[in-house]
Amino acid sequence: MLAINEYFDGQVKSIGFQAEDKPASVGVMEVGEYEFGTQAPEVMQVISGALTVLLPGHNDWQTFSAGEQFDVIGDAKFQVKVLTQTAYLCSYG
Amino acid sequence: MLAINEYFDGQVKSIGFQAEDKPASVGVMEVGEYEFGTQAPEVMQVISGALTVLLPGHNDWQTFSAGEQFDVIGDAKFQVKVLTQTAYLCSYG
Repeated sequence: MLAINEYFDGQVKSIGFQAEDKPASVGVMEVGEYEFGTQAPEVMQVISGALTVLLPGHNDWQTFSAGEQFDVIGDAKFQVKVLTQTAYLCSYG
Repeated sequence: MLAINEYFDGQVKSIGFQAEDKPASVGVMEVGEYEFGTQAPEVMQVISGALTVLLPGHNDWQTFSAGEQFDVIGDAKFQVKVLTQTAYLCSYG
């Protein structure tokens, strides 16, 4: 059964699934600003739109567009600014 | 508000959003075989996993893996076989 996850009062929604070698989810973020927390390390890939992120230990915001990806360490928090509805793939572990 | 769509008794779920220039959705298909119908023409991009499809007017099945995409004409039906949970991006119009 495909699990739907909702965050930030439904401003971010995702569908969990099992990718080849690890759990993953595809999701969409509404326009807004969010703080996410990781448990395991994550790889975030932008599918459509763009994410501007402040990663743990970084002083500068970086923008990732469709086709680009970034790593987030485990047990950390990171900030995200979204200027247009943006789809992403997140792989865990 | 991000709309969740469910098809085939929840075997296929997607999240609709507005991409830069057209409506789109990201979704996940469970293992199985499905027949989809289009209204507008669609571009289907495989994000994770693989889709084996029989496109309208084609005699042979084709397999598209992560990073690959295919076009489907509007007002048509196409068959899909899914051997592993597969995430996709669908752009309409």
